[in-house]
This record gives sequence, C-alpha cells and structure tokens, in this order.
Amino acid sequence: MSRVVIIGGDAAGMSAAAQASRSGADIELVVFERSEYTSYAACGLPYYVAGLIPDENQLVARSPEQHRANGIDVRTGHEVISIDTTERQVLVRDLASGTQTQEPFDQLVIATGASAVRPPLTNIDAHGVMNITVIPDAVAIEEILRNRAPRRAVVVGAGYIGLEMAEAFMLRGLEVTVVERLEQPMATLDADMAADLADQIRGLGIDLRLGASVSGFEVDEHGWVTAVQTDAGAVPADIVVMGLGVRANSQLAADAGIAVGPSGAIATDDKMQTSVSGIYAAGDCAESFHRVSQRPVSIALGTHANKQGRVVGVNIGGGDLRFPGVIGTAVTKCGHIEVGRTGLTMVEAADAGFDAVASKITAGSRAHYYPDGAPMAVKIVSDKASGRMLGAQIVGGPESAKRIDTLAIAIWNEMTVQDFSQTDLGYAPPFSPVWDPILTAARTKAR
Amino acid sequence: MSRVVIIGGDAAGMSAAAQASRSGADIELVVFERSEYTSYAACGLPYYVAGLIPDENQLVARSPEQHRANGIDVRTGHEVISIDTTERQVLVRDLASGTQTQEPFDQLVIATGASAVRPPLTNIDAHGVMNITVIPDAVAIEEILRNRAPRRAVVVGAGYIGLEMAEAFMLRGLEVTVVERLEQPMATLDADMAADLADQIRGLGIDLRLGASVSGFEVDEHGWVTAVQTDAGAVPADIVVMGLGVRANSQLAADAGIAVGPSGAIATDDKMQTSVSGIYAAGDCAESFHRVSQRPVSIALGTHANKQGRVVGVNIGGGDLRFPGVIGTAVTKCGHIEVGRTGLTMVEAADAGFDAVASKITAGSRAHYYPDGAPMAVKIVSDKASGRMLGAQIVGGPESAKRIDTLAIAIWNEMTVQDFSQTDLGYAPPFSPVWDPILTAARTKAR
Repeated sequence: MSRVVIIGGDAAGMSAAAQASRSGADIELVVFERSEYTSYAACGLPYYVAGLIPDENQLVARSPEQHRANGIDVRTGHEVISIDTTERQVLVRDLASGTQTQEPFDQLVIATGASAVRPPLTNIDAHGVMNITVIPDAVAIEEILRNRAPRRAVVVGAGYIGLEMAEAFMLRGLEVTVVERLEQPMATLDADMAADLADQIRGLGIDLRLGASVSGFEVDEHGWVTAVQTDAGAVPADIVVMGLGVRANSQLAADAGIAVGPSGAIATDDKMQTSVSGIYAAGDCAESFHRVSQRPVSIALGTHANKQGRVVGVNIGGGDLRFPGVIGTAVTKCGHIEVGRTGLTMVEAADAGFDAVASKITAGSRAHYYPDGAPMAVKIVSDKASGRMLGAQIVGGPESAKRIDTLAIAIWNEMTVQDFSQTDLGYAPPFSPVWDPILTAARTKAR
Repeated sequence: MSRVVIIGGDAAGMSAAAQASRSGADIELVVFERSEYTSYAACGLPYYVAGLIPDENQLVARSPEQHRANGIDVRTGHEVISIDTTERQVLVRDLASGTQTQEPFDQLVIATGASAVRPPLTNIDAHGVMNITVIPDAVAIEEILRNRAPRRAVVVGAGYIGLEMAEAFMLRGLEVTVVERLEQPMATLDADMAADLADQIRGLGIDLRLGASVSGFEVDEHGWVTAVQTDAGAVPADIVVMGLGVRANSQLAADAGIAVGPSGAIATDDKMQTSVSGIYAAGDCAESFHRVSQRPVSIALGTHANKQGRVVGVNIGGGDLRFPGVIGTAVTKCGHIEVGRTGLTMVEAADAGFDAVASKITAGSRAHYYPDGAPMAVKIVSDKASGRMLGAQIVGGPESAKRIDTLAIAIWNEMTVQDFSQTDLGYAPPFSPVWDPILTAARTKAR
C-alpha cells in the first residue's frame, strides 16, 4: 500500500482525496488540515454575512466525519510545518497538543490555499478590521453585526470579494462605503466597462470611492475601528472588511525547494505535478496555465480548485488526466448588477503581445417587448488581423453574467468573432432578443 | 441600377432588405408583403395573448413607414402569385384592388415564411378554433378572451407554441388542457427528458393529455366550439388553439421550378441561393443545413430568419457571406419551467448514423447553500467511440434553459465531453454550483 499525504482539507485537497479514494488503487489517504473544517465554500462567506445562509455549517459540503466514513484519514487541527522532499516526509504539528511528528509519504498533495492580502497599515489589527477568507472570519463578522449593530461599513478593495461584501452589508441594512486604490472597480475589467459598473454600483446607494489609498485605521479607546484613513480623507467606519484579494500559500513549498512560478504560486505541469516528482499542487496555492495569454497565472477560485483536485486525484490513483488550463472566466453580482468576464481584457491582450481590437454594445436581455428585461453591456476583445476572440466582458442586470460561459467556450475553441456571430444560440422572447446581445457584440465592427 | 424584389416583409425579408440597403450598392429594393405588417415578432404572439404585452404594435420591430424612410419600397397588401424565372419577373396582386402586375427583378428573395399546420378535422373552421401564427390571430384570440370570457382552453399540440399558449391561457386565468398525439410533450426532446417535463407541466395545473389524437370539434348552434373530440374522449373547450407547428411556404417556389428539398422547404446553398442563380430564399420557407446530422432541415425560428436574411442582404449587396447552418438550438418556458435543447437527441443521433450514448444528471442551478436555486436535469448525447458531443437537453427551473447556449458552442466546435468537462465556466454561488450542472453532466459516465 502506498501512502498519500494531502496538506489542506478544503476544495482542492478533498477533491483529490475523494477522487483518489474512488480509484480503487491500494493507497492510504491522510489529510492534514489546520482548521476544524473540510470542504467548505469560501465563496459562500459573503452570503452567510448577508444573512442569506442561516447556518455556517451549510457552507460545509462534506465534514471531516463524512470524509472519514469514506476511508479518508482526515486529521483536523494539524498543521504541516515543513516538507522534506528527500526523505519523503512532512513535519506535522498537532495544534492542540503542540506535539510534532514526521509523517512519511509516497505521494504528496500540496493544497494549502491562499491567504488574504493584509498590508502592514496602521492599526490593521484593530477590533472590527476583518478578513473574509475562512468560516471563522464570517462568523466573527456576523457576531459583530448582531452584537454591536454597526451602522457604517467600509470595504477596502472593489474587486469580487469587495463588491460581494458591499452587497452583504447593504442587505444587512448598513451604510456602505467601498474604498479602492485604483481609478476603477474590478481590475479584471477594462476601464470603460468598469466605469459602467461604477455608475451602477453607486446607483445601489453604495458610496464608491475610487483612486483612494488606505493608509491606516483610526480606533477608539477600546481598540475598535472608528474610521479608515485614506489619502482622500478619513471615512467613518464601525466595521471594515479587507477585500484586497488573496495570495497563494506557496511558502511551505518554496522552503522545501519546490519551484514557485512567476505568479507567486506553486509551479505545476498539466498533471498538476510540481517540480518534484510525486508531489502535486492544486487549488489556490497552485499556478494555472492561461490558454489565451499562454502564461502561468494565479487565480484563486473554487471551481479551479475542484477541477485541479480531481486531476490530482485521478493521477494519484494511477490514471492519467491533464488539467487543460484556464481562461480567467469569472462572474459576480452586487444587488441586481451582474458582472462576467473571460479571457483577456484589452490591457491584458496588449500585455500578452496581441494587436487587439474590441467591439462593445448595449442590448436588452430579453425581446424588446417582453417585460422585465434589463440592458447589458457586452464587450468582445479580438485579434485585429485574424478576428480570433481573446476575451469578453459583460456588465448588466439579471440573467446577463452567465452568458459569459457561451463566450468562454467560443474563446476556448479560438473561434473568430465572424464565425461566432453566426452560431445557433437559443432564442425565445423571455430569454433574449432575436440576436442575443453576445452575438450582436460579435457582429459589431471592432475598433 | 439593379432591381431586387423581395417576397415577404417579415424577419427574413426585411433583414435582407435592410442589410442590402446598407451595402451602398446601386440597387432598388421592392418588398411585396401580403399583410399590413412588416418585421413583426411571431414568437411574441403568445405573450401578447398572455397579457404581458399591452399593444400588438409593440411586436412590430420596424413598420412599413420606417422601412420606407430607409429607402426600401415596401408594398403591403400585395401578394406575389407566381414567379417567372426565365423572364425574371413576378406576378403581383394588389389585394385591395385585385389588379395584377408583372414586376421585373434582377435578383429575387423568397421570404414567404411558414403557415400553421391545420389538418382537415371535422369542424376545424368552427368559431373559437384558432391559429397563432400572425398578429391578427393573436388579436382575435385576445378579443375572444375579453369579450366572451371563455373558461376552458384546449391547446392541440404540446410543442413550443403549444406550451407557450398553455402558459398564456393560464396567465389569463383559464383552465388549460393540452392534447398531444404523441406519448410525450416536445418531440424535440428524448422521451426521458420529456417525461420529466410532463410531470412538471402537470405540476403547474395544466391538464396534459398524451397519446390522444384529435379527430374534430363539437360546436354549438352558433358555430362556436364546445369540445375537442379525441380518440380518448371529448374535452370541453370554450376556445382552442392549434399548436401543431408550421410548414414552409415553398409552393410558390416549387411552382416556378425552384428546387424544394427533402424537408419540404426551399433548398439553398450556403449563400442562401436557391437552385436558380440570383434567386435567394431565407427564413421559415428555406432549408437549413444541420451541422451535426449533416442533413437539410426545416426549422422555423426568428433567429435563423434574421441571420439568413442578413446573409442574403450582404450577398445581394455584392458581398460574400455564408450561412454556416444550424444545430437545432431552441429554448422555451412554461410558467417557471424552462426547456433548452441543441444538436441531436438520442433518437436523432441514431437516425443520423451515430452510435451514441448519453449522460444525464440532475443538479441545482446555484450553490446548494444559496437561496432560491432550482433543480435542472441535463442530458448530453455524445458519440460512443470518440466522445464527441452531439446534442444536449435541459429541463429545469429559472436560469436553466440559456445554459444550452454554452453546450451549443461546444457542440458547434465538435468538442468531446471529456474536454468540455474541464473548461473554465463562470462560478459564484448565486449563479451555479462549483461544478456547473452542464459540466457535471459532461463528466458523468455516458451509457
């Protein structure tokens, strides 16, 4: 029997374990997880804070007990301190007792996730300046909302998590300010699309302050935050959430001599194997190959974590499955506003060496005469000479964002805008105009 | 200046005219339209009857006056009686005066649409036995609903239009029975998916009677329908709508010696040109090439009519644009139930010579913990040996049907289920589980 050790019991690690355990291979699966949770949905945390999910345990897809019942030896409250690639063992600390043991492995899976970016700002450790990365973060925020009834929330960062937390606080009845260093929300959109989005966010009643750098926090005599200091003045705050994104937890691997890529995440091949044979990485800590830019990227998303975990699980179980890479597809919402994006923006396309053009239109989500449609802006980025689709962005109302999937599959297949514009998509008045907005964008002359 | 005559002023004909007029070519555009309407949305008629659209003129995308303002000579109330392909002229009757004139053409566009299938059943011409193909049909139904306050509606046929009319009558507060000759609703779905759909339709309170052939209609002393006679007994009815689909209006072309294809619609090449040079056909009267079955098909849909009309308009204007064919994508809804389909069903795949297998799953539309998700059934048909995707079907709740577009683009590009299952689709808890249901279907073993 060979022994597989998995570091990290969330989406990637447990997907790998579950897949490997189904392979029928003669392997022992041991998972070391620092927290008390396994397989939880970090992406669901804002919705727990929003009050849409009554119990944080609903975010747990499968508990340690359930995994154990499937024959996976899950050890929660255990942190891996170091990896010895020569002796093929990891040093593990039992967080409760403090005891450390060496645990041997034949194959290793590094699924250490990512951590919130938390710059060394003045008073960043004040009470009420929160992260939103793990379940205890969300529970702590929810407790503050319930027990201290804060009136004013400030979210630092206007990316996915920032906008989702802004929505959550809004749903809980707080006044919400979002402070963003850049001149636009959502750095993964082009400036023109982000400007549309900014207008709509403000239309929700959210005070969106762009181009404002946070320098620190003001606190009261009990150490609770009272304001966010920015270069454009102080913003009163009873609670603050840091939404500056996450960074791959790759240090453990780096310390063991395992290669870390240019993105800062652990480098992998298409089997999700690291620079050391028999050692895999998956999920937020691992690099992915971007199929359009042809560059390694670090994108922390549950969907990649699950897919990569599955690839690792199949390979560990003796199979041969490749992870084909990503194209940066993402969707989010804030109130009734939806955002979708895939592939490269104009800026990213130029950076990747493409001579790109874009077409942008605004059209209704439904036939013009059918009630309750909403306008959506669609932008398609394409290669100027060939017309090959490189990226797409959508900002609109209900039923708009998931249309990005259709564009994503077109981009995945390297279709041209000309060919895509003639494809056969579903049409009926409650669902789209006779030319779906994404087709209208494709047949609009790019410039 | 060359003269282009267009027969039919709805989606295909007017798309061709509008596109050609924008080409800058030195052409005169003359459109002969039997009715008083141009560019109207036949697909919107059920929603007018439902009361969702207050004014039937909202269904008109562009009126004859608007087209005339763009330099297109639209002659409503004019019917083309015959085509002379040798002398290059059409015989036109002015329906008001009865006068007939020969109108010469250099190029001709046949866009005669399709007509409702209306079998010679006993009393089919009774008052209250209605079609729903053109605006006056919908206005007449609406007037009956308003003036006679019928209580019981019967829809004959459980296809797209049948289900949409069932929904319309339900929204108007009528008791609705749908009578279908086949043992399933929606002949464009496989029986298993259609069975799910049948259960859900009944769950809406619609009396769906399958395997029941209509033989005629009972009428009262004033000639108004009172019941639908079926081989499974009579069904009381105060109003009836025939939803048996449509048949291409290809007789005019056939009489002129223009080739009609095996589907019964006018045969065309990929420039939408008929067997006679300089004579084009587009829209419901024209055949399309099915990219998966590699066979000509007749599919009456506004989206094809618009695209084909545009292709004809470009070619007439001196350009070169090809219509790449269709894959049979369609969506519809009935109450909260949504249906999407694309490509080939298992039955169609076998008929087209494929050795096909299918995978079918049911999954939620949103993350399991996010409120108000709804289950959807997804079935993917693929080639057994290669895994190439051949078709897909979805039956589910809100936000399910348009996912068919993503599958359609995968099928268009001849992706395998294995490759598709690893693609990068948008994920966030309000939009999908971490594995979108269509990816889950793709990674489920087909049998």
